[in-house]
Amino acid sequence: MAARWRGTRALLLDVSGVLYDSGDGGGAPIAGSAEAVRKIKASGLKLRFCTNETQTTREKFVQKLRGFGFDISVAEVTAPAPAACRVLRERSLRPHLLVHDDVMPEFAEIDKTNPNCVVIGDAADNFTYANLNEAFRVLIGLKNPVLISLGKGRYYKETDGLKLDVGAYMKALEYACDIQAEIVGKPAKMFFESALAELGVQPQEAVMVGDDIVSDVGGAQRCGMRAVQVRTGKYRPADENHPQVKPDAYVDNLAAAVDLILQEL
Amino acid sequence: MAARWRGTRALLLDVSGVLYDSGDGGGAPIAGSAEAVRKIKASGLKLRFCTNETQTTREKFVQKLRGFGFDISVAEVTAPAPAACRVLRERSLRPHLLVHDDVMPEFAEIDKTNPNCVVIGDAADNFTYANLNEAFRVLIGLKNPVLISLGKGRYYKETDGLKLDVGAYMKALEYACDIQAEIVGKPAKMFFESALAELGVQPQEAVMVGDDIVSDVGGAQRCGMRAVQVRTGKYRPADENHPQVKPDAYVDNLAAAVDLILQEL
Repeated sequence: MAARWRGTRALLLDVSGVLYDSGDGGGAPIAGSAEAVRKIKASGLKLRFCTNETQTTREKFVQKLRGFGFDISVAEVTAPAPAACRVLRERSLRPHLLVHDDVMPEFAEIDKTNPNCVVIGDAADNFTYANLNEAFRVLIGLKNPVLISLGKGRYYKETDGLKLDVGAYMKALEYACDIQAEIVGKPAKMFFESALAELGVQPQEAVMVGDDIVSDVGGAQRCGMRAVQVRTGKYRPADENHPQVKPDAYVDNLAAAVDLILQEL
Repeated sequence: MAARWRGTRALLLDVSGVLYDSGDGGGAPIAGSAEAVRKIKASGLKLRFCTNETQTTREKFVQKLRGFGFDISVAEVTAPAPAACRVLRERSLRPHLLVHDDVMPEFAEIDKTNPNCVVIGDAADNFTYANLNEAFRVLIGLKNPVLISLGKGRYYKETDGLKLDVGAYMKALEYACDIQAEIVGKPAKMFFESALAELGVQPQEAVMVGDDIVSDVGGAQRCGMRAVQVRTGKYRPADENHPQVKPDAYVDNLAAAVDLILQEL
């Protein structure tokens, strides 16, 4: 077990369920997590926040976290919308956007005329029948329909109840057009790889810390990273017997993860 | 090839694309089809209209067809909504309905208190984010979630463009809840079987006439019926080389189908 974390040069942290819990009035920080982030920065390890949040811009998201006492800046965040923008630019894709109003500014610089693909995010109340039909007609009218999905979550919990996430609507468009969406966001390999590139480290030099056994832990491990599951956020005891994914460690929270890794370095 | 239709006691006719084409101002009858229906009735063959229409009650649907000159009554129509009502009664299911306003009256007699299943139809503008979430919460709150879908169409054409059909939204709920919907309507075996039961004939005594190679022809053949594809409605030349389904005959339209079958009897 010793030296399990040798060679670690960077940490990637999931945000919701690791730094804070979403909920009433924007949620609440998880005890010890703000101090743990400060410890990472003091240790000299590189650090990147790796989130699937697509209901807001990184600016507003970071502002909320700073309000909770976290030392975090926009430049340290890897999120699906800017990752999608990179993909769009690289492949000269002009998107029709079916996303949340609050994430629109992330696509401000992207050419959206005469669309040749659809980008779908957690659009929430923008998921009207008219808007879905509009996105569908763009796709079905293309010779090679490209659907880029910002994550593939099934549902999430808000204070007024469970809500359908982007994955459900992605499936609706996949079925109607007989196509497969390209996922941007965890657990897509490309998404973790762009976070690693931004850090300038190799997969074997990085450790992912997350609460989602499949999306965070499984996704990072498939990229060649080590991964730790915290027992906060959406963690469930059954995760410790997951049939496919075995984290490199289970820890009670981010503070414990950081202590574990730093003491072994 | 002779005597291919021997033993035929009943015909099942698809409606849209066989009797009439939907479109501007409610659509238009297909030439010769009204006369063909009269010929069937005069021949002594039993007759049933077998449709996946779920945007209206059978009453309004029949009224439109009578306006086109068809000899048709409500009692002769097999449609998904009344078939679903039979399933609901048999299994003591109380539905939460996510359907078109105009088909609601078909469920008037059904107990909808304290729902223990969801019935989804082509709800069109009723497919709001709020309504989808409501249906989703009913399902995810059930120990054994039952989702009954009135057909599984991907999309259809209206005068103002292509529109998503019930199948797309069925897939969204299937993914979100990790379940499989039960389809009521063509090509479900149960649906054809209920039409046969209503006619009082065996599958080998009946011939299905439809424009949909998979839903009409393939579905009927899987029930042991013979099936004819007409070259009207959504028929495409490529259907004549379909990899899975081979109709017992291709004919230009319903009039030709009826002449073919009656002359061989």
